[in-house]
Amino acid sequence: MIHNFNAGPSILPKEVFEQASAAILNFNNTGLSILELGHRTSLFQEVVDEALGTARELMKLDSDHEIIFLQGGASTQFFQVPMNLLNEQQTAAYLDGGVWGKKAIKEARLYGHVDVVASSKDRNYTYIPKDYKIPADAAYFHYTTNNTIEGTQMHSIPDSPAPLVADMSSDILSRVMDFNRFALIYAGAQKNIGAAGVNMLVVRKDILGKVDRPLPSMMDYREHIAAGSLLNTPPVFAIYVCMLTLRWLKALGGVPAIEAINNRKAALLYDTLDRLPIFRPTVAREDRSKMNVVFVMDDPALEQEFQALCKANGMVGVKGHRSVGGFRISLYNALPLESVQTLTEMMNEFALKKA
Amino acid sequence: MIHNFNAGPSILPKEVFEQASAAILNFNNTGLSILELGHRTSLFQEVVDEALGTARELMKLDSDHEIIFLQGGASTQFFQVPMNLLNEQQTAAYLDGGVWGKKAIKEARLYGHVDVVASSKDRNYTYIPKDYKIPADAAYFHYTTNNTIEGTQMHSIPDSPAPLVADMSSDILSRVMDFNRFALIYAGAQKNIGAAGVNMLVVRKDILGKVDRPLPSMMDYREHIAAGSLLNTPPVFAIYVCMLTLRWLKALGGVPAIEAINNRKAALLYDTLDRLPIFRPTVAREDRSKMNVVFVMDDPALEQEFQALCKANGMVGVKGHRSVGGFRISLYNALPLESVQTLTEMMNEFALKKA
Repeated sequence: MIHNFNAGPSILPKEVFEQASAAILNFNNTGLSILELGHRTSLFQEVVDEALGTARELMKLDSDHEIIFLQGGASTQFFQVPMNLLNEQQTAAYLDGGVWGKKAIKEARLYGHVDVVASSKDRNYTYIPKDYKIPADAAYFHYTTNNTIEGTQMHSIPDSPAPLVADMSSDILSRVMDFNRFALIYAGAQKNIGAAGVNMLVVRKDILGKVDRPLPSMMDYREHIAAGSLLNTPPVFAIYVCMLTLRWLKALGGVPAIEAINNRKAALLYDTLDRLPIFRPTVAREDRSKMNVVFVMDDPALEQEFQALCKANGMVGVKGHRSVGGFRISLYNALPLESVQTLTEMMNEFALKKA
Repeated sequence: MIHNFNAGPSILPKEVFEQASAAILNFNNTGLSILELGHRTSLFQEVVDEALGTARELMKLDSDHEIIFLQGGASTQFFQVPMNLLNEQQTAAYLDGGVWGKKAIKEARLYGHVDVVASSKDRNYTYIPKDYKIPADAAYFHYTTNNTIEGTQMHSIPDSPAPLVADMSSDILSRVMDFNRFALIYAGAQKNIGAAGVNMLVVRKDILGKVDRPLPSMMDYREHIAAGSLLNTPPVFAIYVCMLTLRWLKALGGVPAIEAINNRKAALLYDTLDRLPIFRPTVAREDRSKMNVVFVMDDPALEQEFQALCKANGMVGVKGHRSVGGFRISLYNALPLESVQTLTEMMNEFALKKA
């Protein structure tokens, strides 16, 4: 039995693997592989329609918001967002809450002014900055809802006088929130939406078309919206896997249902860590992420021993990011509670033995 | 029995489908799906290494050339190429040989001057322009080696005083050619390299780093080269399918072997079309594509009847592009000769019956 705690690409539901595997041999009884299916066929149009429709339903999006599938990952959005939203003389406000936010700031500077309203760099991004002021005249305010590497998460949507833009790559659809409050949301699929190779973007239409610069077709959100995510050959299989994953989430009861499960997984793991002094969570308690749980052990020898124990017990992806060290346990939507139970039982036994 | 003549996404080898399907359930006996595999693991590094290594070997690339995998399709390259290679005051030469070349020209104009050295638009792109002059001071000369929609193909590499840049999306690795003569080659994977969701780019390193404009990280070829195609989360599965497809081509005997098969397929189909007056190929004989065979029938009722006959016999993807009409039969590497034999036998019978 494998327990996959990978930070992304990460575990997907078992039935998604089974259905995706079958569709590669024979998609919907057509005798064709999903990999050889034309993207302009009605067969694939149904896949796109269901994927976008289910995402819209799960997020309860209003009619002012559009959803599109794009390529290039969230990293491409780091520059595509300011390219589409920020004029050269304008200022965008950014929160510097982790490695990904920092990269987004770097790219935005190519297109206009950037006002970093707050940063938690002083303590290696182990907390979420608070008590900052977002200028009302900012073109937008950008933040990362969940910091995959550092293990912090924003537990409420900031009050912002400027349009809200969020990188939700690592916690989208993991908890109930008012997605309609955002002017723009982007997320790489490879955590909670599907497999690597596609990202989802939600945009409120009224913020588009306001920059002076000419945009290449492939970079212009409006063109992708007008083409229904089929401006050019889309990543057919990656969109199909999104459709299957979103269908799974809907059948499970949608975002409220998965949030309840995610809360149980996170509570079990953090409670265990807090109870066992051998493990030490690294981030501020109130900013703990429910998606990526980061902790270290003060004794490097014990750390190695526990890494080896994880490996011997079929646990993969537990090693912390090289910039943080220690351990990172990712608890994305598809990770079963049973995997966290197995891990925490092992932690208990290990701590008892070493006490 | 299905015969898949899709123009792309298109048929892939049967063993690629089988191996890809199996890897979604259990990749290399790891107990993990390829879809949940971390892209920074040694397991995936082996996949990338084999894919890039095999592509390099099949193309016989010299050490001045680098290969990378990118996202966004060839359409993204329409602007990314000039963004990386064309200064604002410089001029790039373009051949206007079809719909895709025309789109590339439109995007290049955003970054510098464009000199359209020749066009076949006057006859609906049914031939390849000849007898044009490429200015020696052009930043580069861009052309499309094979016009997927119109069914024309350049059968030799033009003599150019300027660095050669080619969109080879629909005929890369289908025939022996000196790939080292090109400064830059790009190709969407979904015809001869793999499935939709990734593209391959070959670049001669000395042409990079010469533009003045600052480049976003994700748009800078040098950053992707330095990161070995792992600058951000890559489209893991799409690269895996490329690796399988390139492995298949290598085992078959590489480019010379597939060229021989491709020549037989194209000869059989064009000979049949030329012999049967009921069918009429639409492009200049000397510019006929061996990848996409385009023809019409003068009687619309017969055309409909033949479309229906194809459908009844399990032939998919035979309909011509809406801008051309009639039929388009794509003969990419993975299409078996048997499919062309079945089609041409059907054509013979149909013509006989209607004579």
